[in-house]
Amino acid sequence: MDFTIRAAMLEDCKDIARMITELAVYEKVADKVKITPKVLEQDGFSKNPFFQCIIAEVPEQHRTKEGHSKVGYALYFYAYSSWSGRSVYMEDLYVMPEFRGKGIGKALMSKIAQLGLAAGCNQLNFSVLNWNKPSIDFYQSQGCMDITSDHGYHCMRCEGAALERLAEGNPKK
Amino acid sequence: MDFTIRAAMLEDCKDIARMITELAVYEKVADKVKITPKVLEQDGFSKNPFFQCIIAEVPEQHRTKEGHSKVGYALYFYAYSSWSGRSVYMEDLYVMPEFRGKGIGKALMSKIAQLGLAAGCNQLNFSVLNWNKPSIDFYQSQGCMDITSDHGYHCMRCEGAALERLAEGNPKK
Repeated sequence: MDFTIRAAMLEDCKDIARMITELAVYEKVADKVKITPKVLEQDGFSKNPFFQCIIAEVPEQHRTKEGHSKVGYALYFYAYSSWSGRSVYMEDLYVMPEFRGKGIGKALMSKIAQLGLAAGCNQLNFSVLNWNKPSIDFYQSQGCMDITSDHGYHCMRCEGAALERLAEGNPKK
Repeated sequence: MDFTIRAAMLEDCKDIARMITELAVYEKVADKVKITPKVLEQDGFSKNPFFQCIIAEVPEQHRTKEGHSKVGYALYFYAYSSWSGRSVYMEDLYVMPEFRGKGIGKALMSKIAQLGLAAGCNQLNFSVLNWNKPSIDFYQSQGCMDITSDHGYHCMRCEGAALERLAEGNPKK
């Protein structure tokens, strides 16, 4: 099947938000999605965007029965390693279920690697849920390492009221 | 002990690189540090910087015997969660050993939380090595969660020759 990979535009935010929700349903956390097309427009398509995005699109004749021709996306941003310098972080990689197995995910990920290298990055980083074995297998087949299992890195987070208390200098309140 | 927290400037890159190396020695990975003051100047202090940094400084009379008055730093950048929007990522938090236990680390981390909230962020994210129990205990005392242990997030990475092969669309070469 033909498909194209291109940079996302403002007009894609509705489809990106739809696919973010589809991915969250797959990851069993649909209730955690607070994002809306409007927020994506503001955060990704104004001056100094917080993220960038690429879209996979199929020709008209391969649209889904709901009419979707935008069938996958990768959302990413530039990051930094104090050991090795510039890096690119892939926040999401998603292809709609009926379009999997056609090389679209590989093409999206390869494009992120190209964009990262062109920007002088030495690393591509991302995270994955440990029960998601199909994804882990896919990523390892693409040359990626699990640095949590191999080197013991743990992801930490502070959010919501805890983040506000930390900012106030009073985390135990 | 008095100390001040301030935004890093170009002139601080030599001290930041020194402390990045000290932190890597503590984390037992000194051989992985490829960064230099020159690279930090280019990547953090030109247009569209890849990272930002804050510095902890003590008065002249508390300098180390080697003459250092810049005794801690936190290196961070803005990131994005497709579920909850803007976030801030703390790449490094470091205080020189003889200045620990004086609230400098807490003040640096609190400042990152303030800066993140001011920029509209909902989350502070970072990673920690699983053998580094003193740091994990400190972070948990500051209201942070271990989302690898609690929710199964694993960090994945592609770098070096593997990243180049991925970009070429030929990861198994």
